Amino acid sequence: MPDMSENIIEKIKWDDAGLVPAVAQQFDTGVVLMVAWMNRDALHTTIKEGRAVYYSRSRRKLWRKGEESGHVQTLKEIRIDCDRDTVLLKVDQLGGIACHTGRHHCFYFLKLDDGQWVEDGEVLKDPRDIYG
Amino acid sequence: MPDMSENIIEKIKWDDAGLVPAVAQQFDTGVVLMVAWMNRDALHTTIKEGRAVYYSRSRRKLWRKGEESGHVQTLKEIRIDCDRDTVLLKVDQLGGIACHTGRHHCFYFLKLDDGQWVEDGEVLKDPRDIYG
Repeated sequence: MPDMSENIIEKIKWDDAGLVPAVAQQFDTGVVLMVAWMNRDALHTTIKEGRAVYYSRSRRKLWRKGEESGHVQTLKEIRIDCDRDTVLLKVDQLGGIACHTGRHHCFYFLKLDDGQWVEDGEVLKDPRDIYG
Repeated sequence: MPDMSENIIEKIKWDDAGLVPAVAQQFDTGVVLMVAWMNRDALHTTIKEGRAVYYSRSRRKLWRKGEESGHVQTLKEIRIDCDRDTVLLKVDQLGGIACHTGRHHCFYFLKLDDGQWVEDGEVLKDPRDIYG
């Protein structure tokens, strides 16, 4: 496998806001847990600390996933795509809850074959108990 | 499961360019194949045609995945996340090649434990043979 050294991070194509989307996937089951955003600092901090650190667009600061909820995502693997504008994190989701709604993953709006959209995803923990 | 009717699509939070990221995942293996972008038209066309249709930011038009390469993504399931700003497509990747580089998936830049970045992903088909 050819050595890309650290160059690949230097070649990331950040968007106009300095961000790229980051997909978090449960490493052992393949479940896509969530998509969030990273700036350069978030990416470096994720690698340095071995846990998913995003950039919160609403709070305009680094967001160490789990800092309030305890639902930390331990980094198992990190990949960047061919266009160098998306990050894929394979993580271990502590507590099994990635979503702020208390669900395992965030993608719970599901389209059924009859065209109806439903909520498909059990609330494992009341958000009021997560965030106090 | 509560009926959300068609409302969820109407409530999608498109970004300033009218787009949201869309994650394509191989439905049976869980492999994250790629991340692309959708506008409202792309999302509706994906649902209508039962295949992944994205919006190409470089070509500024709808991009029916596979229209040139033949590597169509047949839609198996479509989900939207809690914040209603990301789409997850579970697809069957025809030909097994999602990446324009001829690889199975786009996330082939991998960080090793020693900090080195490598290309991890076999080129299954020469891109010159894909696009002629």
